[in-house]
Amino acid sequence: MIPIVSIVGKGGVGKTTVVEKLVAELKKQGYRVATIKHSDRGFEIDHEGKDTWRHAKAGSDTVAISSAQKIAIIRNVDHDYTLAELYRYIGPDFDIIIAEGFKHDKAAKIEVHRKKFGRGLVCTKDELLAVATDEKLKLDVPQYGLEDARGLVDLIEKRFLTEEKQDEVTLFVNEEPIPLNPFVKNIIGKAVLGMISALKNVPQATNVDIFIRRKAGE
Amino acid sequence: MIPIVSIVGKGGVGKTTVVEKLVAELKKQGYRVATIKHSDRGFEIDHEGKDTWRHAKAGSDTVAISSAQKIAIIRNVDHDYTLAELYRYIGPDFDIIIAEGFKHDKAAKIEVHRKKFGRGLVCTKDELLAVATDEKLKLDVPQYGLEDARGLVDLIEKRFLTEEKQDEVTLFVNEEPIPLNPFVKNIIGKAVLGMISALKNVPQATNVDIFIRRKAGE
Repeated sequence: MIPIVSIVGKGGVGKTTVVEKLVAELKKQGYRVATIKHSDRGFEIDHEGKDTWRHAKAGSDTVAISSAQKIAIIRNVDHDYTLAELYRYIGPDFDIIIAEGFKHDKAAKIEVHRKKFGRGLVCTKDELLAVATDEKLKLDVPQYGLEDARGLVDLIEKRFLTEEKQDEVTLFVNEEPIPLNPFVKNIIGKAVLGMISALKNVPQATNVDIFIRRKAGE
Repeated sequence: MIPIVSIVGKGGVGKTTVVEKLVAELKKQGYRVATIKHSDRGFEIDHEGKDTWRHAKAGSDTVAISSAQKIAIIRNVDHDYTLAELYRYIGPDFDIIIAEGFKHDKAAKIEVHRKKFGRGLVCTKDELLAVATDEKLKLDVPQYGLEDARGLVDLIEKRFLTEEKQDEVTLFVNEEPIPLNPFVKNIIGKAVLGMISALKNVPQATNVDIFIRRKAGE
């Protein structure tokens, strides 16, 4: 499972600015980065009258649009997804996911704080990896300046971005990610790659996705 | 692999209207439907100044936004994706995907035609599953009225939506879908489910996703 770090803090404190700085710094260092924003109020990304809007209005459960530069996929969901659930749709082809919001999520969190927003943080110190702040807080958590993206990225690298030599194997069962130790990862990875290598007319696999859906009644 | 049917035709002929009718009819019959629109000119779905726009501007390769009602994921891509490549991101949790455009794709196609758009179709008859038209064409391809969504859905059902009793196993190798015969599907599905059932603290799997990424140099 690839690391997910969420940037949390009070409304208006500057979470997006910190995300921007972190993403720019991570990209500068060559990492593949995805971001996820949590929207409390809901969002409108598609617009009345557009073809994709018409597809959705007609009842399509998921609507996508594809061009040579980008693809967008909009899915109806029945609850507020956790970062682990969202990860399944983002996929494993990144080195790190930076989230914004998701203060109740289990993911690692960095809180943004500014003096003029008053005392108190939205997370407890035990939940926090670090604080990005414009004043020194009496808190036993690593603290960085609001501009110190380099410092935050160094911390993230040290904690999460160590070089993996083993094949990466990510498993979801019934939509939940299953933590796998290196031994089990190795067995599942090798067994699946072995089966695939026995198929005719299939290239040498560097990248494999398998989806299994059991039929009811079996 | 779930069936994909693309609605093609000249610009302005009424493709989106046919997609709307098909989606509504498929939903009425209880199917899970996703749609994909092809955009020749590119599209803007995110807007200047929005948080997700700022994430993308900072360099994020993929940007997502999540609320309790829906999630949207916008990915940068380096070429115009085929429907088979897009399918990997849409996922297998639908009964059918209805596409719009993609006239050069290998997927099954239904062309929309109207008399006032002049003679000739954008696809040859060998490429077409059917034509939805307001005039009878001299063409050896099943023809339906523009309003006859029921007729088109009956055809799609007959061709693609037969009840599958076997577990559904979908395999992508190096981002390409690999066709599997029922025997191979059964072996891969059973072997993977067997391995997973041996893991501790993992629920009875009805739904499994595995992603393997081989590390370079092995």
